[in-house]
Amino acid sequence: MDISLSTDEILDIIGEGIKEGDTDVIIKGIAALDIAESGELSFLGNNKYSKEVPNSNASIVLLPEEYKGKPRLNQLYLRVANPSLSLSKICEHIEICLNPSRSPGIDSSAVIDPTATIDPEAYIGPQCVIAADASVGKGTILEAKVYIGENSHVGKNCQFKPQVVLASYCKVGDRVRLEAGVIVGSDGFGYDLNEGVHYRNPQIGYVIIENDVEIGANTTIDRARFDVTRIQEGTKIDNLVQVAHNVNIGKNCMIAAQSGISGSTTLEDNVTLAGQVGVAGHITIGQAAIIGAQGGVNRDIEPESKSTGTPVMPLLQARKIDVLLRKLPELFKKVANLEKILEKKAVIKD
Amino acid sequence: MDISLSTDEILDIIGEGIKEGDTDVIIKGIAALDIAESGELSFLGNNKYSKEVPNSNASIVLLPEEYKGKPRLNQLYLRVANPSLSLSKICEHIEICLNPSRSPGIDSSAVIDPTATIDPEAYIGPQCVIAADASVGKGTILEAKVYIGENSHVGKNCQFKPQVVLASYCKVGDRVRLEAGVIVGSDGFGYDLNEGVHYRNPQIGYVIIENDVEIGANTTIDRARFDVTRIQEGTKIDNLVQVAHNVNIGKNCMIAAQSGISGSTTLEDNVTLAGQVGVAGHITIGQAAIIGAQGGVNRDIEPESKSTGTPVMPLLQARKIDVLLRKLPELFKKVANLEKILEKKAVIKD
Amino acid sequence: MDISLSTDEILDIIGEGIKEGDTDVIIKGIAALDIAESGELSFLGNNKYSKEVPNSNASIVLLPEEYKGKPRLNQLYLRVANPSLSLSKICEHIEICLNPSRSPGIDSSAVIDPTATIDPEAYIGPQCVIAADASVGKGTILEAKVYIGENSHVGKNCQFKPQVVLASYCKVGDRVRLEAGVIVGSDGFGYDLNEGVHYRNPQIGYVIIENDVEIGANTTIDRARFDVTRIQEGTKIDNLVQVAHNVNIGKNCMIAAQSGISGSTTLEDNVTLAGQVGVAGHITIGQAAIIGAQGGVNRDIEPESKSTGTPVMPLLQARKIDVLLRKLPELFKKVANLEKILEKKAVIKD
Repeated sequence: MDISLSTDEILDIIGEGIKEGDTDVIIKGIAALDIAESGELSFLGNNKYSKEVPNSNASIVLLPEEYKGKPRLNQLYLRVANPSLSLSKICEHIEICLNPSRSPGIDSSAVIDPTATIDPEAYIGPQCVIAADASVGKGTILEAKVYIGENSHVGKNCQFKPQVVLASYCKVGDRVRLEAGVIVGSDGFGYDLNEGVHYRNPQIGYVIIENDVEIGANTTIDRARFDVTRIQEGTKIDNLVQVAHNVNIGKNCMIAAQSGISGSTTLEDNVTLAGQVGVAGHITIGQAAIIGAQGGVNRDIEPESKSTGTPVMPLLQARKIDVLLRKLPELFKKVANLEKILEKKAVIKD
Repeated sequence: MDISLSTDEILDIIGEGIKEGDTDVIIKGIAALDIAESGELSFLGNNKYSKEVPNSNASIVLLPEEYKGKPRLNQLYLRVANPSLSLSKICEHIEICLNPSRSPGIDSSAVIDPTATIDPEAYIGPQCVIAADASVGKGTILEAKVYIGENSHVGKNCQFKPQVVLASYCKVGDRVRLEAGVIVGSDGFGYDLNEGVHYRNPQIGYVIIENDVEIGANTTIDRARFDVTRIQEGTKIDNLVQVAHNVNIGKNCMIAAQSGISGSTTLEDNVTLAGQVGVAGHITIGQAAIIGAQGGVNRDIEPESKSTGTPVMPLLQARKIDVLLRKLPELFKKVANLEKILEKKAVIKD
Repeated sequence: MDISLSTDEILDIIGEGIKEGDTDVIIKGIAALDIAESGELSFLGNNKYSKEVPNSNASIVLLPEEYKGKPRLNQLYLRVANPSLSLSKICEHIEICLNPSRSPGIDSSAVIDPTATIDPEAYIGPQCVIAADASVGKGTILEAKVYIGENSHVGKNCQFKPQVVLASYCKVGDRVRLEAGVIVGSDGFGYDLNEGVHYRNPQIGYVIIENDVEIGANTTIDRARFDVTRIQEGTKIDNLVQVAHNVNIGKNCMIAAQSGISGSTTLEDNVTLAGQVGVAGHITIGQAAIIGAQGGVNRDIEPESKSTGTPVMPLLQARKIDVLLRKLPELFKKVANLEKILEKKAVIKD
């Protein structure tokens, strides 16, 4: 990746910054403080790394305004309100340069049903398939091999990476990013058992993905049995997550990789699931609750609470019990010892 | 989704039902009792929701024959033997209407090897690839972007959603449904360690998927090292499940999302794995056994038993231990107290 | 699968072996000792199965040199230095015969950007897409539907199964095998929270997959925020594994199915993760450490150690505690009993 940014260009991008040191620097890359080399930019995003700043070989260091210290020879300190945010602006600029520009239009190898509606300013990449009565909005980019099912609608300025599947009758808002291999609208897992045989419940509902949702690679979102599976505005979902039928995920939730949410469960707004969490069906996780990694949620969860463990319990309780668990061998010995003492006393005194 | 069903049409579909109330109703959708609106159909599938029936705004309510109570104005009660089953019949009817009809034939963008055999009544969608010596049976529908490998055979009336991969030399029975992104026949994970380097065990076996099996989105089924990985008749598998090489899954098993089964393990008939269960290799889970969510199965499991936990133990034992775990802090205090009392006694009396 | 190998052909393939018994045998398949039939080859790979040898119906049995016993009528014993390795050689031979030969060249349905560089001895299968400035090396096979992004480079003699996605700016070494549905270079999951809204951290790094790495079906490997996500030489990864951004996996590691590794974590060389392990971010697992199935790793791990549990603890400690856990009901009773005795004593004597 060929990056080349002058100090002036960087100041243009971040739109602020008090300069101290050498401004005659060209940035070729970005790296952490401890491994950055000359020609690279670094940043102090967390004060616990502040000891690494004086020893960093980075040519430019983004620092909080209150940081004390002076740059080395041929080094520039840029003091800004929020170094992490400024870094993201620079990275965003680089990302745009790195990403290929997609001129609007439809690749000749794509298969578009004549009844589909493609906005003239959308980009439909190689070997995409758009089925009957589907639509794709302005500014949306479908990379190669994306499938859009019958009667599904994709909003504006979305980005779908290769091999996204959006099954039929689903609705996607604006600025939605779906990573490679995401499946939206697969059938929910529902069966009636009758004399030892499982009969499929037809899954005639659909999926709504609201604005600004982002979903990670190979994640699966099932359509509803009837009604809708909904992912609300601003929620971000990591890779290999399972969202079952009729789940309702609130706004601005964060769901880390390999978590699974069973059918008809509700996550209120701002819920966080760490990695590999499992959530049972037909329950509610209250707003802003946090579930720790590998937690197994089998009951309703209080808003604003922190829980962990399988089955889940409050975080502080879980930590306490975890400490005591490690002392179990000692406890068994103590009890054996108490029994011995009492037995002896019994013999001697009773 | 445009649904429009008259009372008469609904009676036709379910084939039974005692009417009470307004029969002049057009149904536009299906919803749960508490949220159904006028123009929607609802059902009482579980008696614990029977209190919601009198307040429901649904225009038609499917009820068990013994249900007491009278419909509201402009509402129809339909009493049937099994409301859930009747609902599934209606949903199936709607599903058929919603799903695009696929006229038999091969899409012009599909790539079919000249040695492959496609039944004239099969449907091969856009950008499917069928390799040499493969075959696809009568009535089978391959949606877009399905890959069928060399010498693999797919039976009758199957439905493969977009991006299914069936690798070479695998066999699929009749009426098998594979959701989007399912991979059947990937190489098993087997290596010989020799002087620090892992040498791949060639995986020359294959996979058999028997009749009426259904497999969820992005699930992976590995081919055998030699011999066969087998999923027997009627088994249903959810999304993101891993089935390793040489696994043998019996008839009518239910495997929930994100579970994983290690190599050469056997599940007998009617086994249920809840979500995120892990099963070690070379073991047997007895028929009709049930493993709770996130369970870690590291030993053979008795038929008809219920187990949970990591490592797995009988369900009742696990529940008891879980209760006691939460009382550990109290137990540690009690033991400390007993020690103190005994010490005191020792000082005073010994 | 039509396999047909004479005794002489088998000796040619394994290049060694002391014959005893009937050499006039044609092998049609391979099977375990207990289920092998006449016409099949079997092997004694683990001495615990040695009792099965005399009863095996296999026509050829690969045995360690020191094995005592005589073949049955119409049976051949082949004594070799390492039966498992000899078997792998035979299977490798069969695998080559079974796999379709891929003549170098580009399928007419593939879409290749004019700026991409394809070695004339590479094979590019049906409906592959190769983007601008990408390259594919000599002897590499891309099965159907593989996507190679802009500026990504694939080395020599690699094998990518159907539906592999290699996003832009990634580098793959030689002899790398990627199973169907593998996603390499998806965006990492990183956000800055600002007034309740999550802002995406642009992910401008990339992924390096070194020589002889093998990755299982539907596994996802995220690109770095900046810098690189790296999978080092000889590492093998199973199906449905998640590798987050900026992870660094050492040489010759083994990562079993459905494990997940969070951002910026390092696995040193020869680490083993069993199935469904979760590893937190920003930690280090020391070389040759082993983590048991479903383990939850929330801290740095000592080299050469064995750990298990959530949160993880040393294996021996975990086993001990697991045994004691099952005795908790008994312990609670003992303590209750001690309390009763002491109370009684108090009443009687104090």
